[in-house]
Amino acid sequence: MKNLNMVMHCPDQKGIIANVTNFIHENKGNIIYIDQYVDRVHAIFFMRIEVDFKGHLSFSLDQFRGDFNKSVGTRFALNCDFFDPKIPPKMAVFVSKHDHCIYDVLSQHHAGKLAVKIPFIVSNHPDLKHIAQRFEIPFYHIPVTAATKKEAEREQLKLLEAYQIDFIVLARYMQIISPELIAHFPNKIINIHHSFLPAFPGAKPYHSAYDRGVKIIGATSHYVTEELDAGPIIEQDIARVSHLHQLQDFIEIGQDLERLVLLRALKQHTQRKVMVYNNKTIVFI
Amino acid sequence: MKNLNMVMHCPDQKGIIANVTNFIHENKGNIIYIDQYVDRVHAIFFMRIEVDFKGHLSFSLDQFRGDFNKSVGTRFALNCDFFDPKIPPKMAVFVSKHDHCIYDVLSQHHAGKLAVKIPFIVSNHPDLKHIAQRFEIPFYHIPVTAATKKEAEREQLKLLEAYQIDFIVLARYMQIISPELIAHFPNKIINIHHSFLPAFPGAKPYHSAYDRGVKIIGATSHYVTEELDAGPIIEQDIARVSHLHQLQDFIEIGQDLERLVLLRALKQHTQRKVMVYNNKTIVFI
Amino acid sequence: MKNLNMVMHCPDQKGIIANVTNFIHENKGNIIYIDQYVDRVHAIFFMRIEVDFKGHLSFSLDQFRGDFNKSVGTRFALNCDFFDPKIPPKMAVFVSKHDHCIYDVLSQHHAGKLAVKIPFIVSNHPDLKHIAQRFEIPFYHIPVTAATKKEAEREQLKLLEAYQIDFIVLARYMQIISPELIAHFPNKIINIHHSFLPAFPGAKPYHSAYDRGVKIIGATSHYVTEELDAGPIIEQDIARVSHLHQLQDFIEIGQDLERLVLLRALKQHTQRKVMVYNNKTIVFI
Amino acid sequence: MKNLNMVMHCPDQKGIIANVTNFIHENKGNIIYIDQYVDRVHAIFFMRIEVDFKGHLSFSLDQFRGDFNKSVGTRFALNCDFFDPKIPPKMAVFVSKHDHCIYDVLSQHHAGKLAVKIPFIVSNHPDLKHIAQRFEIPFYHIPVTAATKKEAEREQLKLLEAYQIDFIVLARYMQIISPELIAHFPNKIINIHHSFLPAFPGAKPYHSAYDRGVKIIGATSHYVTEELDAGPIIEQDIARVSHLHQLQDFIEIGQDLERLVLLRALKQHTQRKVMVYNNKTIVFI
Repeated sequence: MKNLNMVMHCPDQKGIIANVTNFIHENKGNIIYIDQYVDRVHAIFFMRIEVDFKGHLSFSLDQFRGDFNKSVGTRFALNCDFFDPKIPPKMAVFVSKHDHCIYDVLSQHHAGKLAVKIPFIVSNHPDLKHIAQRFEIPFYHIPVTAATKKEAEREQLKLLEAYQIDFIVLARYMQIISPELIAHFPNKIINIHHSFLPAFPGAKPYHSAYDRGVKIIGATSHYVTEELDAGPIIEQDIARVSHLHQLQDFIEIGQDLERLVLLRALKQHTQRKVMVYNNKTIVFI
Repeated sequence: MKNLNMVMHCPDQKGIIANVTNFIHENKGNIIYIDQYVDRVHAIFFMRIEVDFKGHLSFSLDQFRGDFNKSVGTRFALNCDFFDPKIPPKMAVFVSKHDHCIYDVLSQHHAGKLAVKIPFIVSNHPDLKHIAQRFEIPFYHIPVTAATKKEAEREQLKLLEAYQIDFIVLARYMQIISPELIAHFPNKIINIHHSFLPAFPGAKPYHSAYDRGVKIIGATSHYVTEELDAGPIIEQDIARVSHLHQLQDFIEIGQDLERLVLLRALKQHTQRKVMVYNNKTIVFI
Repeated sequence: MKNLNMVMHCPDQKGIIANVTNFIHENKGNIIYIDQYVDRVHAIFFMRIEVDFKGHLSFSLDQFRGDFNKSVGTRFALNCDFFDPKIPPKMAVFVSKHDHCIYDVLSQHHAGKLAVKIPFIVSNHPDLKHIAQRFEIPFYHIPVTAATKKEAEREQLKLLEAYQIDFIVLARYMQIISPELIAHFPNKIINIHHSFLPAFPGAKPYHSAYDRGVKIIGATSHYVTEELDAGPIIEQDIARVSHLHQLQDFIEIGQDLERLVLLRALKQHTQRKVMVYNNKTIVFI
Repeated sequence: MKNLNMVMHCPDQKGIIANVTNFIHENKGNIIYIDQYVDRVHAIFFMRIEVDFKGHLSFSLDQFRGDFNKSVGTRFALNCDFFDPKIPPKMAVFVSKHDHCIYDVLSQHHAGKLAVKIPFIVSNHPDLKHIAQRFEIPFYHIPVTAATKKEAEREQLKLLEAYQIDFIVLARYMQIISPELIAHFPNKIINIHHSFLPAFPGAKPYHSAYDRGVKIIGATSHYVTEELDAGPIIEQDIARVSHLHQLQDFIEIGQDLERLVLLRALKQHTQRKVMVYNNKTIVFI
């Protein structure tokens, strides 16, 4: 391995950057990118570092991780994740009946624009199976009713574990995820909500936006938490509308926003540029 | 008078445009601009027309209005307002302590960019009197407390009537307007709210937006109705923020949005391009 | 046929709207949407009308067109097109090696979001054949070199005529279209240019934008005319960038813009909401 | 002095951050904000640091600067500027006849939103003297003609030196600045251009944008260099327009953009968050 990405946070203290960069420097790593942020309100320090070890022929990640945690990590109570940027994470796709987001995710993935592996697609409806087939990705139809919800989630969980899924994207999956399933993927379930959150949470946001007479509509991608549509926001974008736009126009314009916003969030997440703290995200560029 | 603006609405029916334009045509008027909109959900027809009568040397507005209402107006149950675009409306400015919006309104007015007359400024605090003086506009300090609120509004109303005010702008006026006062100026009180409504209504929206971790903040100008921050939206705009922006950045970026959005709304209102129906606005360009 | 769309323009004169709407009214048509615009600089009148004839059981388009042209059409020198909104136009897709736009066009078309027929895809390279196959659309590989360009366009023209193509989309087709071919499809060839025109026309706009240090990048969809990247602009959009974005980021962010902007332009064109005059577009909503 | 801002750049090398932060750390400084950027194409390292020395009772800037330059500065060939954030820079305002930008700059300055001192305003026309008087700022009328241009700039330079001006804002000053004057203020003359550069440089950009039929207009604030409208871009923003907007609408919408974009650029510059390299800006948030 030649490249290493480190994403860390810890209580804010003097000398963190100096010590961490020193350590990397002494271990023959060349820092090719560093970005950091301090939440002054909560006195938390966040840092993302891209290191190049090509000068270090005998580099071992395990050894480096161990040494780092023993020394700097312990001293500053650093919580640090280590990633090999060459290894794409495994993403499961949950859908229902809307096809605009899944088409975009699969097309972009197929075009090599989204660095993930997509082992399977799961849906509570059979409608979109043809799209999965078109892109040659296994499709599992797991119906969900009030009565079968628990059992359905057990089946979903089996799949998620069998395929060693790293994170889940809800590409307009119209079911509420239970706290049990969320607990298995904390800040690892990405949803696209078709409104400018916190405006219009819940069902039928385009109808609500149209009735309210807003002049701008939006879409929001966020991590799923127990409270509906209240998780950490990763990305948002908007489009202008006017009285000339009918409800159907809101929906069409909005669906293009949804595709764009979800894709950006997925790219940022898969590049491990998103850190979550205190129900907010730090998104490094 | 050479120019006339007509703003009308009525139940949607066949032949309205033909009959109205015919009538104007037969009365020696040349239509230089026409814009119309049909709310299909409620079957309401809206139209704004700019007419040039310079070919009609003996034109009389009263006569034309009378003839129009008698014929086309009655036939289609048209509710029509007639304006002379040359006569600027009279606008009262309500402020409290924030000065960014009033500075912008007075500067733009002074620069001839805002076609209104500003007979006076009223505030529940004396702080901004120096700005009124700088722009040579009468400033009335009417303190408002829970106890004196009713009396204070009576004083305000006296001023509004004495100066024959056409509409009011709340340039960050931090008091709730009573239903009584609103009743005197239905859809004629314009407020600027420092959030992307309906997100973050009420107090301290920047704090709420910062705590929620949104990636985009906004400002909204709307007509004041009895329900707080729920009136017809005239204009909105947004700006991107990131985790790098502190609460103070939200406020600074937002205040520039407030200025811009309020000014646009004031221009659209003063040009009589805004029509209100069903708690929504139709804003003709 | 129950619905008819009429798109017309003529020298601006008094009474056009009245006479046209009258004529439709007298012919048992109910105007469900009308939008018009006057280019005052050139005194040209433009109008788009959606008419519902369901009250008119024996309606005949040919008869109506004939009667309309004989009476109102002749009187006002109206140039009017008549469309049945139920009949989607036939669109040919030209591509080279970039796949992001074609993926989006085909996905959206397949999802029923783009009301066109796509009889074939043509490319000067074989690279994207697999995408055409994935969406089961005939793919023609017509190589183009300086030497074979004329012959290649003859082949393209044969295809365009054989399939009775209504308009062409250049979904990142990296060849200049000859005046001969353009002459066959005046204002019927839609290109997506990966910059905010007129900034950065020609090749490698992202490189130029990166070198210039712009803070905002854009994409532009326009009709192809003889002068490169100078045709009538249909739609544009932008995205913010900063010094943190490398050239590769410009390209990735930009390609998402290209997809969005091209799709919007295609929707507007296929709904016949775009009128061209004096190298500018009138785009009715 | 309790706070110090350091803005530095140097050839990119290993260990810069570690050594600089170490040095500050060892000198009893607490880093409250750090932002850095590496231009990989040119291998240049940029960093902005905010340091708090309140723990260091006997802190001396001169001593610190000297020690820093001797040790870390020399070692990494660092070019570093040291600022006391408490001392606002002195800004001269150049105007001609347009008043929207100067009104905004003076209003915002007066409202305490722009941390500069404004010792004087200079203009080649007397028209805006009343605004200077309204805000009680000295106004110098220095006419400029082809014949007197050199002499006029000598007078301007005298004023700039007499008032020890740090930087100049051209708030719609319609004269070209000579290379001689630019040489006195390299990257210290901020201009607002009323187009989305590099589109429509030079005169009458709104007219050109209107004629070209763009769907989005913009404004650009940049540092003045010898090549007209080609200097490093600090900030840009845009607004959507349509065929419904006449030339006068382009101008009105655009002037609000100009005010907003210029103000943002001035805030970023006065906070020393802008670094210039290779005719591009690095703008730290």
